[in-house]
Amino acid sequence: SQRSQCSLGVKSSPYPATGRRFQLEDVIEAQQFDRDILTAIFEVAREMEKIEKGTPESEVLRGHLMATLFYEPSTRTRLSFESAMKRLGGEVLTTENAREFSSAAKGETLEDTIRTVEGYADIIVMRHFESGAARRAAMTAGVPVINAGDGPGQHPTQALLDVYTIEREIGRLDGISLGLVGDLANGRTVRSLAYLIAKYQDVKIYFVSPDVVKMKDDIKEYLTSKGIEWEESADLMEVASKCDVVYQTRIQKERFGERIDLYEEARGKYIVDRKVLDVLPKHSIIMHPLPRLDEITPDVDADPRAAYFRQATNGLYIRMALLKLLLLGW
Amino acid sequence: SQRSQCSLGVKSSPYPATGRRFQLEDVIEAQQFDRDILTAIFEVAREMEKIEKGTPESEVLRGHLMATLFYEPSTRTRLSFESAMKRLGGEVLTTENAREFSSAAKGETLEDTIRTVEGYADIIVMRHFESGAARRAAMTAGVPVINAGDGPGQHPTQALLDVYTIEREIGRLDGISLGLVGDLANGRTVRSLAYLIAKYQDVKIYFVSPDVVKMKDDIKEYLTSKGIEWEESADLMEVASKCDVVYQTRIQKERFGERIDLYEEARGKYIVDRKVLDVLPKHSIIMHPLPRLDEITPDVDADPRAAYFRQATNGLYIRMALLKLLLLGW
Amino acid sequence: SQRSQCSLGVKSSPYPATGRRFQLEDVIEAQQFDRDILTAIFEVAREMEKIEKGTPESEVLRGHLMATLFYEPSTRTRLSFESAMKRLGGEVLTTENAREFSSAAKGETLEDTIRTVEGYADIIVMRHFESGAARRAAMTAGVPVINAGDGPGQHPTQALLDVYTIEREIGRLDGISLGLVGDLANGRTVRSLAYLIAKYQDVKIYFVSPDVVKMKDDIKEYLTSKGIEWEESADLMEVASKCDVVYQTRIQKERFGERIDLYEEARGKYIVDRKVLDVLPKHSIIMHPLPRLDEITPDVDADPRAAYFRQATNGLYIRMALLKLLLLGW
Repeated sequence: SQRSQCSLGVKSSPYPATGRRFQLEDVIEAQQFDRDILTAIFEVAREMEKIEKGTPESEVLRGHLMATLFYEPSTRTRLSFESAMKRLGGEVLTTENAREFSSAAKGETLEDTIRTVEGYADIIVMRHFESGAARRAAMTAGVPVINAGDGPGQHPTQALLDVYTIEREIGRLDGISLGLVGDLANGRTVRSLAYLIAKYQDVKIYFVSPDVVKMKDDIKEYLTSKGIEWEESADLMEVASKCDVVYQTRIQKERFGERIDLYEEARGKYIVDRKVLDVLPKHSIIMHPLPRLDEITPDVDADPRAAYFRQATNGLYIRMALLKLLLLGW
Repeated sequence: SQRSQCSLGVKSSPYPATGRRFQLEDVIEAQQFDRDILTAIFEVAREMEKIEKGTPESEVLRGHLMATLFYEPSTRTRLSFESAMKRLGGEVLTTENAREFSSAAKGETLEDTIRTVEGYADIIVMRHFESGAARRAAMTAGVPVINAGDGPGQHPTQALLDVYTIEREIGRLDGISLGLVGDLANGRTVRSLAYLIAKYQDVKIYFVSPDVVKMKDDIKEYLTSKGIEWEESADLMEVASKCDVVYQTRIQKERFGERIDLYEEARGKYIVDRKVLDVLPKHSIIMHPLPRLDEITPDVDADPRAAYFRQATNGLYIRMALLKLLLLGW
Repeated sequence: SQRSQCSLGVKSSPYPATGRRFQLEDVIEAQQFDRDILTAIFEVAREMEKIEKGTPESEVLRGHLMATLFYEPSTRTRLSFESAMKRLGGEVLTTENAREFSSAAKGETLEDTIRTVEGYADIIVMRHFESGAARRAAMTAGVPVINAGDGPGQHPTQALLDVYTIEREIGRLDGISLGLVGDLANGRTVRSLAYLIAKYQDVKIYFVSPDVVKMKDDIKEYLTSKGIEWEESADLMEVASKCDVVYQTRIQKERFGERIDLYEEARGKYIVDRKVLDVLPKHSIIMHPLPRLDEITPDVDADPRAAYFRQATNGLYIRMALLKLLLLGW
């Protein structure tokens, strides 16, 4: 991004950063993050958990404006970002119907839209239906851009909050054993998580999925090239008995088109229920990116190892950390 | 509700409540309120009317976040709550398309949605299309829930603002005579109002409605059991001449289906116009939950006894009072 | 407007105006502004450009609430107003689906809606699909109303930001030569601009447009009556070579109905590209109300004379100025 020199810009903040500028100008994809920066971001996220109302820390982004430019609705992600911004005293401009900006009738380019919105806001959080849209926005914008999901592409803040949750709940990332369960072919989430976790040592990954939605070769080859051990398994119980993290995902009906029969077969195959809890080690956790359907039964929720709602809340802290870092620096 | 122990929670507010905790953890239905608590809430609402910009009172909810989780749009109710929160220095997360959370395709339960949203906000204001949804949300949530209407069920803040308006305009609630006019069969508003007003002494209620939308027996029996006098009348003029309050309502076309003829007959039957004003006592008032169609003619608006726009503004003060009480206590 | 005496009203602001009350109670149409008031507003807009985060000036509207009551979506205009309000520390209530207020089924009048919303907010910014709606709202409201576009009628803040941009970029308004290009028949923007610019001395206007969308006689006659020289030209290059400002507009496809052939012919006729830049004087600028399609080629954007994105940002400053003036005075 080219930084603007607008008098409403970052430099004039009354709450100056304590020092170093954040290494990233935008958050576009998981690959931007290495171990050191992840560790540092997670430390900031931990500080965010402790912020109390009425303290100076809760107003550190006072006077800053975030635009949520959503070309497709995603209420959950939008609310998480908006809560994060407001928890730090910042303000929000919301557009959940951003397609109007570029409606077929009017035909404005994404680049023109970004040039207009950057005049209104200090940071842009964008959700788009096209892979690569976030990068195009960041190339144009003079303010930071955060990718809140661009089609089948990336959703980097989800990947960050997943890794943060593992570190937060298990206490480490090196040496972790991780069972990825469910739709591994289409899930943006598990793919991004695999990329990020590959940055750590002695990680072991188990893929547990119906045949029609198996993990694709590109990720397997990537993991192998990084020295990450992985194997496929058809036995969820056995995998659960030796994993630190069981990461369950939703089988996405919309991917099956007319083949409802295949969908029904796939969705019932690997369910996390009390039987899985029975074999799951005491220190381990169940994760899920949400929303869930019935791939985790509700009677699992009360178990302390059910980490998925804490995982959602961790998204708040990760996004608070990123907003603070992009707008004020370290 | 189970209260969360989140560090962003209520307890850590920099603006401590002056003392006692509010008796209610959630606001779900009119039946939760007795005379004493109504009197106390109305006193807080009166204080809310006097709050001026730039005073500490206008920032008492600074740092607090309210989520408006609307499963069906109701712009009027949403704006009233959001204005109330912001008039007290609080912040708002808005979702007018909350159905996406639980779309058929994705199938998330209300309970899961609530568990996610309570991670983002300190209080949830929910509008839903299903009776009982607010209670389910409150059972799940670790933060307070306010019911902003759940289908044919309850809309308790409307009932509170109605009673507050009578007390504010007439100066008392005991001994009041009240004409309920229009659609008494389907109107959630008049039914809730009847429940609440039954808590007072020497109340007299007149039902004035077309035959097809008469007040149902359950309410009549309830009033009788509480010792409230009521009668049905076909003579609006006579009722108006002896009432403190004429509460007009809209005949809801959507309830008549194909029978447009019945609707047209019903809607024209009892109109509040200047002729009604001519017989209405000087100290009495006309109320209406709004929006109105033509059941009150516009030439009534200028009369000081037309209280319906003041009634709408009273909704703001009642909601300010409830938000303050639920988040900070007395 | 009739001013309300609500305790949350303007008078009780903790940040008192420095003195004089603003001459206008509402902003409804371009004709309300004369040279003197334009000059004074532009001075305030210049001050707005310089406001820095964390200064008292950036919080001058703290505690004030603006309602954006949009009966048709216009994300660009809405965001500009909301950013303006928040840049001054004010708060916003958003309604992008205001039609619900007055849906056919419910049938509430605009006047009733305004009477309700004025209970929630200190100022109303309204977009409507009907010409004259803003004036009706202002007649009813006890709080200031700003017209953010009412159908084929007016969009006065766009006209103000256009004139402000010319003054800001060229340094003067008297003696300006101005080429209006594109759809001059249907463009609300160029019509309003013509009205405003007619208040200045020695202005020369060139109309450059396809035959099917020529400037209408009423504007031509108005300009003549005000002593403004104008002429029509079919030669964009020649006009560009002698203009201070080339104001390009989008040919609106929706105006051509079935006659796509006429639209295609019209839209390709006058394009601002690098060849136009080659003849455009060094001190001159290209303006456009945005969104653009291909009537300005993207390779023009990098030229410092491409003023259209600065023009959009000027909208922010003009709206900040108007909000401040209407709510606090001079």
